[in-house]
Amino acid sequence: MHSSTQRSGRGRRPAAEVRAAAVDAAGRLLFAEGIRAITFERIAKEAGVSKTTLYKWWPSPGALAAEAYFARSQPLLEFPDTGDLHADLVTQVTSFAELIAEGGSVIPQLIGSAQTDPDLAEAWTRTYALPRRDLARERLLKAQRAGQLGADADIDIVIDQIWGAFYHRLLVLRTPIRDLDIERLVTAAIRGAG
Amino acid sequence: MHSSTQRSGRGRRPAAEVRAAAVDAAGRLLFAEGIRAITFERIAKEAGVSKTTLYKWWPSPGALAAEAYFARSQPLLEFPDTGDLHADLVTQVTSFAELIAEGGSVIPQLIGSAQTDPDLAEAWTRTYALPRRDLARERLLKAQRAGQLGADADIDIVIDQIWGAFYHRLLVLRTPIRDLDIERLVTAAIRGAG
Repeated sequence: MHSSTQRSGRGRRPAAEVRAAAVDAAGRLLFAEGIRAITFERIAKEAGVSKTTLYKWWPSPGALAAEAYFARSQPLLEFPDTGDLHADLVTQVTSFAELIAEGGSVIPQLIGSAQTDPDLAEAWTRTYALPRRDLARERLLKAQRAGQLGADADIDIVIDQIWGAFYHRLLVLRTPIRDLDIERLVTAAIRGAG
Repeated sequence: MHSSTQRSGRGRRPAAEVRAAAVDAAGRLLFAEGIRAITFERIAKEAGVSKTTLYKWWPSPGALAAEAYFARSQPLLEFPDTGDLHADLVTQVTSFAELIAEGGSVIPQLIGSAQTDPDLAEAWTRTYALPRRDLARERLLKAQRAGQLGADADIDIVIDQIWGAFYHRLLVLRTPIRDLDIERLVTAAIRGAG
């Protein structure tokens, strides 16, 4: 009898490959059908992984969804570094806005569910929110060292002011994010940093 | 037979009074026990209101919770007007930070649930988020007319940058909001507005 984590004739798939297949399947389902589609039952079937294996790696389907969102967004959200901080932030934030628009209700659902699901919250902050903040910090610190942001600028406040503006409209005001003028937002955040 | 909306010997309570009693009971429960305590069963008992009446006024307990949150926060979140925009914003935002801290998980729960509960989302934006944004707009427009903000400042971006910063930490990063330096946040937002 073959378990679903084996391919007949080729032996057991390496764990990393199986894990990646599960994350990939979850990412596809998440963007196509929303967070409710992410069940271990469904991912097991789509990725050819046993449910037992999924339970071993993720405490809940929400935790897998958070990781899948990070994996899918990662290549889209790179920080360019042309040396022009304003232009680079506009480029990155424009990609971020497109990802949110493409995701539809996926991101509100993920963050919304995180407020009452501790496993999802832990996975969301560990695999998405804090790593993304760290990437933004890195790019902004580099700009600060290059003299493009004031020496006493509060980098974390700049981050809150740029990305927080989107989340404010998306989650709190629930007004269309396409109305947010990215050029002006970035200009205000950089100027405000001093 | 007396219905629970009547007081014996004193006739039927005016609808506005009954409604206020329900909102008040919901506010108390919300801050004491969290959003899960807000059921029509419980509010009916606490406020001496029939469940039928509650269903007539609110499509769901979540909608009542959102209105109760606004009612409870309203007196705490007034915008002072001393003529000094920076000082007034620091005062208001400090009250807002205290309200969030006092509420514990109430605000994340409300906003989180709004992402998957359309009735709650509608009540949240209509009775809390958009009215609060309008009050902030009013105060900032007044400052702009007084020359304390640049003539071409984008008022909505200033709002996103101040209050969005809190929601970013509260909901997305899930880091303590007490770490956010309100003085610096307000300074950056005003300076950034130009």
